[in-house]
Amino acid sequence: MHPNDPSLRSFIDVSPDSDFPIQNLPYGVFSTESTLSRRVCVAIGDFVLDLHALQSAGLIGPADVFSEPTINAFMALGPKIWSATRARISELLRHNNPVLRDDASLRARALFARSEARLHLPIRVSGFTDFYSSRDHATNVGTMFRDKENALSPNWLHIPIGYNGRASTVVVSGTKIRRPLGQTKRPFDSTPSHGPCLRLDFELEIGTVIGQPSAMGTTLSEQQAEAMIFGFVLLNDWSARDIQQWEYVPLGPFQAKAFATSVGPWVVTREALEPFRVHGPTQSPEPLPYLHQTGANNYDIALDVTLRGSEMQVPANICSTNFKQMYWSPIQQLVHHASSGCAMEVGDLLGSGTISGPGPKERGSMLELSWNGTDPIKLAPSVERSFLNDGDSLTIWGHCSGACYKIGFGGVEGTIVPSM
Amino acid sequence: MHPNDPSLRSFIDVSPDSDFPIQNLPYGVFSTESTLSRRVCVAIGDFVLDLHALQSAGLIGPADVFSEPTINAFMALGPKIWSATRARISELLRHNNPVLRDDASLRARALFARSEARLHLPIRVSGFTDFYSSRDHATNVGTMFRDKENALSPNWLHIPIGYNGRASTVVVSGTKIRRPLGQTKRPFDSTPSHGPCLRLDFELEIGTVIGQPSAMGTTLSEQQAEAMIFGFVLLNDWSARDIQQWEYVPLGPFQAKAFATSVGPWVVTREALEPFRVHGPTQSPEPLPYLHQTGANNYDIALDVTLRGSEMQVPANICSTNFKQMYWSPIQQLVHHASSGCAMEVGDLLGSGTISGPGPKERGSMLELSWNGTDPIKLAPSVERSFLNDGDSLTIWGHCSGACYKIGFGGVEGTIVPSM
Repeated sequence: MHPNDPSLRSFIDVSPDSDFPIQNLPYGVFSTESTLSRRVCVAIGDFVLDLHALQSAGLIGPADVFSEPTINAFMALGPKIWSATRARISELLRHNNPVLRDDASLRARALFARSEARLHLPIRVSGFTDFYSSRDHATNVGTMFRDKENALSPNWLHIPIGYNGRASTVVVSGTKIRRPLGQTKRPFDSTPSHGPCLRLDFELEIGTVIGQPSAMGTTLSEQQAEAMIFGFVLLNDWSARDIQQWEYVPLGPFQAKAFATSVGPWVVTREALEPFRVHGPTQSPEPLPYLHQTGANNYDIALDVTLRGSEMQVPANICSTNFKQMYWSPIQQLVHHASSGCAMEVGDLLGSGTISGPGPKERGSMLELSWNGTDPIKLAPSVERSFLNDGDSLTIWGHCSGACYKIGFGGVEGTIVPSM
Repeated sequence: MHPNDPSLRSFIDVSPDSDFPIQNLPYGVFSTESTLSRRVCVAIGDFVLDLHALQSAGLIGPADVFSEPTINAFMALGPKIWSATRARISELLRHNNPVLRDDASLRARALFARSEARLHLPIRVSGFTDFYSSRDHATNVGTMFRDKENALSPNWLHIPIGYNGRASTVVVSGTKIRRPLGQTKRPFDSTPSHGPCLRLDFELEIGTVIGQPSAMGTTLSEQQAEAMIFGFVLLNDWSARDIQQWEYVPLGPFQAKAFATSVGPWVVTREALEPFRVHGPTQSPEPLPYLHQTGANNYDIALDVTLRGSEMQVPANICSTNFKQMYWSPIQQLVHHASSGCAMEVGDLLGSGTISGPGPKERGSMLELSWNGTDPIKLAPSVERSFLNDGDSLTIWGHCSGACYKIGFGGVEGTIVPSM
């Protein structure tokens, strides 16, 4: 049976509302208090399955990629190995397979409670690129800062607009986010000043994880690009709006984005998302031939954002939207990224850009939710926000709904700590 | 004696016009036909000195960093080791030191004719950031594309403007540069089109090589930043002007720069450049306190660019300028880069931005030399160029002039090959 088969069951009890049924098997990197070295795992229900332990026991190949501190070496092996490995892990976790189920000693070495596992950044990020592919987001921002009639820049419907981000500050969920210092100048100030960011924001995104390289000087077809995509992570592109506004003309965002980008600990494989492929919005004007796509290259992934201020008891849901609305697909982003002959590398991370939908609760940033601070959002009876405060904890959630299971991403959280 | 002492002589004959006297000792990575593995070396006259061979012979420490395929592991050891190693290499190369000079067997293992050495990319580039720090360049570009009265964007005199570039396509001198494909739209076109770049350009730059990391969430003082700088390379930031013009609003250059960046094979150390430190231009308005500098943080480095079309017998010199004119110094660039809390990494490469001076022959790009194609430059009696043709070979040269020696960079060359 295919590892995506909805009827598969594991010998490990998985609650129907778990993010991690046997149909998911997302990859991560973990350590425990007793074994500090990092190794590759998959999530299953409330457990993590140590792939290095399975490999040491001779139960899965290929050699020695799971004792690495990231999944890059595994990704470098290519799509055939990705599929074969996932199928084998699925087989080992099935309710009717005694190999792992009935081997108490192996289970003790290979299965750990997720609550006891420390999860690390799963990929060594080679390059981080951030796109701008939600039409609603680009329209909202353009309406706020330019004018409603010309909200989209003239190139937006022709190019999956993107820019190079900073790979060194991509961090895993749970990492504290220090409010950045920076240079700002409001329109009515005569000179710029320097200090803590006053308009700190999140951006709800999904990151595409590139698992195969392409050579410098070559370009990619739709099919070649697809085969290079290993999987997807939730991504929060933290943004300092006041720094951004002063620095970004003419060469784009720099320090406004460089201080931190959070990603989820779980890389959900492209294969696990296959049942949730959908066509994106109709693209008009039709893209140039190099960007044509024949497939259903979007994914139906429900997304939520919750925010809890330090003065709140429970988090408030501030945004509910869906990845399927993105105008440019991950494959089009990757094809465009390589279109000049730019070499792609194992471990490249491509942010989707802020995911917003048409409705007021579908906006994937505080900038849009509070309409540039003019309309603060209510989080609780006496709590409101235009941007993020110190102590705020923000979490992005994502999942696909199967017939009787869900394929979840596990959430990406970050809490704001004060500037130095 | 200090390794910068002008009176030092090596037992290896070094011509007075060589880039590589004993006062230079730039680091590179080489292999030979007989020994394919890459290892770290320094240049001396017409030779390269294999540091792994010296280490194996017990003549220099520290352990096993010179058998690496890049200088990153050596850089990671820090400024004290950088100085001690350079002093020791200098000592071993002196005219009156018999250790290497009189050991024919060791010389055969450690000294190779530069003409027989294949030089590789000396650093594993962690992040590539490109600045925009020449006032004359920014003024020229602003005058061409905006207006002469407001040539500099309002932030330019306050911020060392920069953007994240693409690290995966940083290549060593001699690598062929494939003309990129891309999407373009001229103002009078109704729709964009896709095809080979028609306005291919170079940018004369110097790259700062970062040899020490800084932690996420921390900022840098002038002194801390200086101590992190290992050295400098010549850098050519190849640019597709027609692609850039259509794509760069609002998030900056992307595919227009992503296809290739060439760097020289030799990293000239900060220490070797110490005698050539000069004050940069007066900065007015005074930068914000975090960007203040007390030192003479510019360098007097003469720069030349030569271009040889396939129809030409000899290269033509198209630009002569000097690095000392840069408005923002490498230290200010680095301090600003970390100012939001952005983590810096060993192997980060910071391009200076195009280095132009006030004179018409001091312009560091075809865009400026041909004034956006309106005034093609003459290379030979019947040869002119506005931008680069297939077959063109472009080389950047740089050197500092000492009392009776020069500290040179060895040149960075690239030849344009047609689009796929």
